[in-house]
Amino acid sequence: MSKGKLQIIPLGGLGEIGKNMTVVRYGNEIIVIDCGLSFPEDDMLGIDLVIPDITYLLENRDLVKAIFLTHGHEDHIGALPYVLKQLTVPVYGTRLTLGILEGRLKENGVANSSLVAVKPGDQIQAGAFKVGFIKVSHSIPDAVALSVRTPVGTIVHTGDFKLDQTPVDNRVTDFHRFAELGDQGVLVMLADSTNAERPGFTASERAVGATFDDAFRKARDRIIIATFSSNVHRIQQAIDTACKFKRKVAILGRSMVNVANIALEQGYLNAPEGVIIDVDEINNYPASQVVIMTTGSQGEPMSALSRMAMSDHKKVDIVPGDTIIISATPIPGNEKMVSRTIDYLLRQGADVIYEATSGIHVSGHASQEELKLMHNLVRPKFFIPVHGEFRHLVKHAKLAQDLGMPKENVFVAENGHVLEFSPDKGAMTGKVTAGKVLVDGLGVGDVGNIVLRDRRQLSQDGILIVVVTMDKQRACVVAGPDIVSRGFVYVRESEQLMDEAREKVKHTLEKYETGGITEWSTIKTGVRDTLGKFLYERTRRRPMILPIIMEV
Amino acid sequence: MSKGKLQIIPLGGLGEIGKNMTVVRYGNEIIVIDCGLSFPEDDMLGIDLVIPDITYLLENRDLVKAIFLTHGHEDHIGALPYVLKQLTVPVYGTRLTLGILEGRLKENGVANSSLVAVKPGDQIQAGAFKVGFIKVSHSIPDAVALSVRTPVGTIVHTGDFKLDQTPVDNRVTDFHRFAELGDQGVLVMLADSTNAERPGFTASERAVGATFDDAFRKARDRIIIATFSSNVHRIQQAIDTACKFKRKVAILGRSMVNVANIALEQGYLNAPEGVIIDVDEINNYPASQVVIMTTGSQGEPMSALSRMAMSDHKKVDIVPGDTIIISATPIPGNEKMVSRTIDYLLRQGADVIYEATSGIHVSGHASQEELKLMHNLVRPKFFIPVHGEFRHLVKHAKLAQDLGMPKENVFVAENGHVLEFSPDKGAMTGKVTAGKVLVDGLGVGDVGNIVLRDRRQLSQDGILIVVVTMDKQRACVVAGPDIVSRGFVYVRESEQLMDEAREKVKHTLEKYETGGITEWSTIKTGVRDTLGKFLYERTRRRPMILPIIMEV
Repeated sequence: MSKGKLQIIPLGGLGEIGKNMTVVRYGNEIIVIDCGLSFPEDDMLGIDLVIPDITYLLENRDLVKAIFLTHGHEDHIGALPYVLKQLTVPVYGTRLTLGILEGRLKENGVANSSLVAVKPGDQIQAGAFKVGFIKVSHSIPDAVALSVRTPVGTIVHTGDFKLDQTPVDNRVTDFHRFAELGDQGVLVMLADSTNAERPGFTASERAVGATFDDAFRKARDRIIIATFSSNVHRIQQAIDTACKFKRKVAILGRSMVNVANIALEQGYLNAPEGVIIDVDEINNYPASQVVIMTTGSQGEPMSALSRMAMSDHKKVDIVPGDTIIISATPIPGNEKMVSRTIDYLLRQGADVIYEATSGIHVSGHASQEELKLMHNLVRPKFFIPVHGEFRHLVKHAKLAQDLGMPKENVFVAENGHVLEFSPDKGAMTGKVTAGKVLVDGLGVGDVGNIVLRDRRQLSQDGILIVVVTMDKQRACVVAGPDIVSRGFVYVRESEQLMDEAREKVKHTLEKYETGGITEWSTIKTGVRDTLGKFLYERTRRRPMILPIIMEV
Repeated sequence: MSKGKLQIIPLGGLGEIGKNMTVVRYGNEIIVIDCGLSFPEDDMLGIDLVIPDITYLLENRDLVKAIFLTHGHEDHIGALPYVLKQLTVPVYGTRLTLGILEGRLKENGVANSSLVAVKPGDQIQAGAFKVGFIKVSHSIPDAVALSVRTPVGTIVHTGDFKLDQTPVDNRVTDFHRFAELGDQGVLVMLADSTNAERPGFTASERAVGATFDDAFRKARDRIIIATFSSNVHRIQQAIDTACKFKRKVAILGRSMVNVANIALEQGYLNAPEGVIIDVDEINNYPASQVVIMTTGSQGEPMSALSRMAMSDHKKVDIVPGDTIIISATPIPGNEKMVSRTIDYLLRQGADVIYEATSGIHVSGHASQEELKLMHNLVRPKFFIPVHGEFRHLVKHAKLAQDLGMPKENVFVAENGHVLEFSPDKGAMTGKVTAGKVLVDGLGVGDVGNIVLRDRRQLSQDGILIVVVTMDKQRACVVAGPDIVSRGFVYVRESEQLMDEAREKVKHTLEKYETGGITEWSTIKTGVRDTLGKFLYERTRRRPMILPIIMEV
């Protein structure tokens, strides 16, 4: 890299939701901001999760000084269990963030990691970088933005944020610090673009409290609230409202129980003695005195709420009279699952309060007016929109230009782009390896395009396996051909088709026998082509056809 | 059925989007309203489309007098190519509806159907039923509601509708006829619930014309508009705006070309001589004089717009300066595909105008205030909400009750429920077969739960095929075991795993050989269990395992 220049290299989070990760490099020193996962796209069949490709960091492993975390959401910390197996560096984050991370590391058998807790206002020196932590509001407590002082200038990375003027925990965003940094001069800002399309201000988290209040007042029997497991503020408001209406609260769903326990322990969640009860105790109270907080607000098929909706939960049955509050908005791609869950809950006679019909959820991300305020406080010379689909980045870039920033100072980048800055110039100067690493079970990165292509073909029309045992010497069939299919047609009702298919294969094999052809690959191709054509004509389907020749 | 009673039996369209179909029966006479398809759910892998199960109609085939259509959308006519192969009855619909249907029937090789064109205001006697056609507004021209006079009372079925006060074709909804029917007394109303969650009024289609006007004014170069292929009003407004700005219009995408040709022929679409050009001519004009109307507003991977976005279209390349208008809203489930298309178009440097950032689309369905007006005009005694997810039906039912209808007169039903009416009583009296028939290629109904379950398993972790040739007499292995996998792991990088797997199988087979066990099913189960356990331990994946024994 050019001497005396500062590089910012996003390895994830641009042009996508999730998988947030940014590299900052000066000379031979690197720090990393966040290390998140994302969830698989629809065409990534069988994939559990997706993490950033960290080839660049592994190639420069000796230069990496530390990883700094902005908050405890999966899309900011979720790749660490994988990355820390390959890279031994200290990780800095606030207490709740590290509390959640510790659980994840333990689940994944990562020991000996060096986690260092910081507080908003702290400053950490890491090589040439001085990293400061700045309080912001988000849909999880203890979220921070970062300031990074470098020899070239100061970077501000907002992390995920909103400017909630009345946060539930009263810990207001540190406007003063952003203003101070703006006064001192900021070279580059990277800022959350998730809600760059939304005009106005994002409503305060407290608005949900008011809606809870209404809903609790109307509900006669049991109340079940589903939300994101890490939304501690939301859980707090449910507890507060429950206290007001003299109800007990049971928390259900492994991930929410984990987060709630950490948050209670660390004081980010507060409940008067005796309010929180075990889920096994709910039947000791009349329905009118019970609130169940649970997961499944995205309609995830295995979640507690989905199981209840499908009458498949061990401990909770939905009964008429239940009021169910889905306190979340469907993440893009989850709309149909959420909708299906609502329908099943309604079929069971429950009252369901959900987003389309009420103000039961607010976003954790800044809308346009908040973004403008952030830009005007920080007054950066250069700007890199981060966190969002490409169209969010474009929209955020336009917003910055509307505020007066010259077009050439705004960088709508892609993951892996190297953005290089001197005190008065910024440019895209190169590219490094960046991309998606797919995690499937214990396999990290072993499922690639070929495996996915096969899964896609298998998922569409299934597979036909043609097995034949041949005598290599005499080039003749000893057993078979046998045809086995899965996912193609219902075999019991398609005997004729399968018989005809077998005849086709037999006929093809006889041709090769007569011709004395013993090239297995020629025979396989012949079988595949003949059979593929026959089946397409008869069914308009293209199953995978797998000829196997056993040699005796 | 009870003598002198009227039955209404929904066979589709309740608790789901699409696949609309309603049976009306009096004594031994049946008529059917609409006959639509729906698109497969995410878990219906490889399925092309879904049609209603018409077992009930086939069991009563001699009673079915006719099918009546409300409009030409796929979810109202799309199952006819399949149903008319099994059921020979006349089909009544307006001209555009039948024009579109004819194309579908021809594509599917259905000849000799008896299609009868009607006009709004017409009345058709079919057995004991007198069916009237009432003009309504919708996102396709020539849409009608139906009145059905029966010996028990009058039914009103709204079809899909909105109450557009300023429709593009100036054919305003026949409010007078609804009022007249209401005056004369209506026994049962079935009404569109799609937008029952939306407060207020749905904006007029003309609002989109104003947005087009703005967009055309700002665009310097080429304009590309994507919308639903059957939205003739939208195409008309694009043509009108193009004329105003002296641009030519090329229509691209097979389905849109088909509909536009029918609509032009029948006079539902009007374009001055020379305005519509062939897509091959677009390069004869400067970019500033060209508009391309196309399909792909849902991000469908094979559509014209998606191909353009991916630089994969034969005739049109996206270039910086292009303005692309996505004049549609994503249908639930399509959000991510639409979003991906927008991102790729932006990456190519185009300006993209889409729903989240503009008023570039209006719905074709009535919002709450329009629904209320319809209820107050028709004043039915009984009400059945139709067309919508279960939650939309529930919402629409509540709306009817808010308007004063007694709860027991409102029926939130499921497909297959038999709703029976006398002049003063309505009740759910039974159930008939109803459900989804899956169409996959040429197969109608041959893909069921077993095939789908296999496709799902194959799609998640692939398949391992274990082949071994055995000598039945001597109960010993003659060739193999060979293991072939697809969609499980990338084989070239997993040789060790596959070798170990083969050893495991060998070991298992040896055990059986030693034991003299020749029960193929025992051996297969043993192989499957051993291998499944081994692979899960090593990979945390559960591929389908298919042991095949060839006997010599």
